[in-house]
Amino acid sequence: MSERRIIALITDFGYRDPYVGVMKGVIKGINPDAEVIDITHGIRRHDVLEAAITLLVSAPYFPKGTIFVVVVDPGVGSERRALLVKTRNYILVGPDNGCLSALAERDGIEEAYDISDSPYRLREVSHTFHGRDIFAPIAAWVSKLGVPGDIGRPIDPSSMKKIDIGRPSYDPEEGGLWAEVIYIDVYGNAMTNAGEREVGLLGLGIGDEVLLRVSGREFRCTYTTTFSRVPVGELACYINSWGYLEVAVNMGDAASLLNVKPGDRLLIKRAA
Amino acid sequence: MSERRIIALITDFGYRDPYVGVMKGVIKGINPDAEVIDITHGIRRHDVLEAAITLLVSAPYFPKGTIFVVVVDPGVGSERRALLVKTRNYILVGPDNGCLSALAERDGIEEAYDISDSPYRLREVSHTFHGRDIFAPIAAWVSKLGVPGDIGRPIDPSSMKKIDIGRPSYDPEEGGLWAEVIYIDVYGNAMTNAGEREVGLLGLGIGDEVLLRVSGREFRCTYTTTFSRVPVGELACYINSWGYLEVAVNMGDAASLLNVKPGDRLLIKRAA
Amino acid sequence: MSERRIIALITDFGYRDPYVGVMKGVIKGINPDAEVIDITHGIRRHDVLEAAITLLVSAPYFPKGTIFVVVVDPGVGSERRALLVKTRNYILVGPDNGCLSALAERDGIEEAYDISDSPYRLREVSHTFHGRDIFAPIAAWVSKLGVPGDIGRPIDPSSMKKIDIGRPSYDPEEGGLWAEVIYIDVYGNAMTNAGEREVGLLGLGIGDEVLLRVSGREFRCTYTTTFSRVPVGELACYINSWGYLEVAVNMGDAASLLNVKPGDRLLIKRAA
Repeated sequence: MSERRIIALITDFGYRDPYVGVMKGVIKGINPDAEVIDITHGIRRHDVLEAAITLLVSAPYFPKGTIFVVVVDPGVGSERRALLVKTRNYILVGPDNGCLSALAERDGIEEAYDISDSPYRLREVSHTFHGRDIFAPIAAWVSKLGVPGDIGRPIDPSSMKKIDIGRPSYDPEEGGLWAEVIYIDVYGNAMTNAGEREVGLLGLGIGDEVLLRVSGREFRCTYTTTFSRVPVGELACYINSWGYLEVAVNMGDAASLLNVKPGDRLLIKRAA
Repeated sequence: MSERRIIALITDFGYRDPYVGVMKGVIKGINPDAEVIDITHGIRRHDVLEAAITLLVSAPYFPKGTIFVVVVDPGVGSERRALLVKTRNYILVGPDNGCLSALAERDGIEEAYDISDSPYRLREVSHTFHGRDIFAPIAAWVSKLGVPGDIGRPIDPSSMKKIDIGRPSYDPEEGGLWAEVIYIDVYGNAMTNAGEREVGLLGLGIGDEVLLRVSGREFRCTYTTTFSRVPVGELACYINSWGYLEVAVNMGDAASLLNVKPGDRLLIKRAA
Repeated sequence: MSERRIIALITDFGYRDPYVGVMKGVIKGINPDAEVIDITHGIRRHDVLEAAITLLVSAPYFPKGTIFVVVVDPGVGSERRALLVKTRNYILVGPDNGCLSALAERDGIEEAYDISDSPYRLREVSHTFHGRDIFAPIAAWVSKLGVPGDIGRPIDPSSMKKIDIGRPSYDPEEGGLWAEVIYIDVYGNAMTNAGEREVGLLGLGIGDEVLLRVSGREFRCTYTTTFSRVPVGELACYINSWGYLEVAVNMGDAASLLNVKPGDRLLIKRAA
């Protein structure tokens, strides 16, 4: 093991309570050399999809071997399993509610374990804070030892709960792409599940006018490289830094303007 | 000294201003090997009780020898003393306003110093930012050297200002326990000062119905192991992950529903 | 190079999205020994002045050699240059929009480079996230190697975009000082651009009454050492911990009371 292996955290614990700090205390007590990085603790409460997408887009920028701990866990204390998944490049730790599945599938699952009763948990395990009592200590032990043989009960990866970010579909009648809003960032930029390849089907060139239709309302928008390429206050769409089509307003809030939220469908077509 | 000794921070500085970052700059300038962990900077402004409870519940999850720095300091620049307290397992640094007292008493005080004029402060000490000028540098020097003999003026621990989280009292007429709300987390879960032992006096079993009375209003609630054990939108109470009785709403906000804030009293009794 | 050189971050990315965490992943992938410190990610969106002042007041508390990365970058993807500036004590990395200029000028510029096309960027550079693709990797390489000769294209420092925090001016007719509000912290304390020296022109003594005039309205205020020296709810002004005149309300919010925002002018004079 690297001496300062990275443990990267994604939670919905926010920044007011001591939950995250305490997880770090537990980690450092087990492996003082672990390097803990906060990806975010601002996931919307119980929003497993947002956690899954955050993990999916973040992971490629972390070193091979990084241990990702995701604690967005509305079912804590119920029968849902706690998981450790070894993928081709990473180790994923978190509840079995889909938050790990999108990255696990893309990266390729090598081994998966139910760690609900792992001997590497804290001695006392509460019913309400598995981030502290299960996920943090297991990540810390793995950062120190690698994945020990007795970390948990091996499971069939196909039994893991899945979250699907969907795929956009081409609508030949409309001549456009139906995509889904999957993430809205703090600026109100609305990211869709339409990747570079699918957007390619529309044959758009930089500067082309695009029509967006959402809940029956239509908006004109410039297909460009970044929001600052359109006048202040106007709509732009572009392939964002994670490789997905995103709608933004230069110096404004596209999600408010379009009145969209994650899960909403959006038609994108070349303007007539 | 461990080479990467932990300095854990609790403040009400929030996340917008450079106050916390600058404290870390000061620490790293003195001891590059100190490991700084944020417990929270989201303590409600000037809320010394919230800081004291945050410290009390967090400390057991940190390694022996951790240096806790608490900067919730409405009296900065007044005559209040700056303190360093060596307890059985920890070093506590902060203002003499009670924020350190609950943990200090529970862990057992070994030595206490007034560090207001310590030679280990920064050379220039402002009137408004002792986190930067006194508490951070002293924590950093102690992380490097241990507690040097000249760190400050030894004081009688009994002269320290105290904060009391109180104790619940059994009301034989009501057949219930009067407890006090001491902390409300970001989810609206309301933690009381009733510990596992005191709740035991009520002889409740998992699944029992409980009556909560607050400001004359009454609520029915299930005594359980965690909020997800009751239907969405319903009240649950349980011993939380810190060992205290907490009231929550599954996927909701108990503090709003009950209209309680820290300091409010709550009667808990078995439902008839 | 120090083995654990500090990279200190200032951004307007907030705490909800994975942007900052991903920058840290990139840094650690290049130099696992870099020590990353968050100064703040709560700069108001696109507020280059606030970023410049945050950097200016924070830097003196960081060790010599610290690498500051500032990503408040409304012009990302446009023609604005990306810069690395070596000053007497620090390395500054960020967009050429003025966010680095105040500190650079005060500390003394030794070398400046346009790093827009640096070979030390990530292999693929997006149009919207130069924090991840340019600024973070360049800071990481510099933390590992020092400033390599081929880091970028040397530029004339005088061509850098400047931000001016201005200077207060003495008004002999009024017998007072016109200053500008340059920063409002989370408590509502309003910091002006009047430094200790300029305030000295007013010949005030601790405890003196001061008159503040802003947008035609006048307020009486005590000149003191810190806000806690006046009664709760009353106005105080004092030289703050960064060396600038600040107006505060003890346990209150001065910016709201005075109805000021950054950029507003304020007359400060001795009360009659």
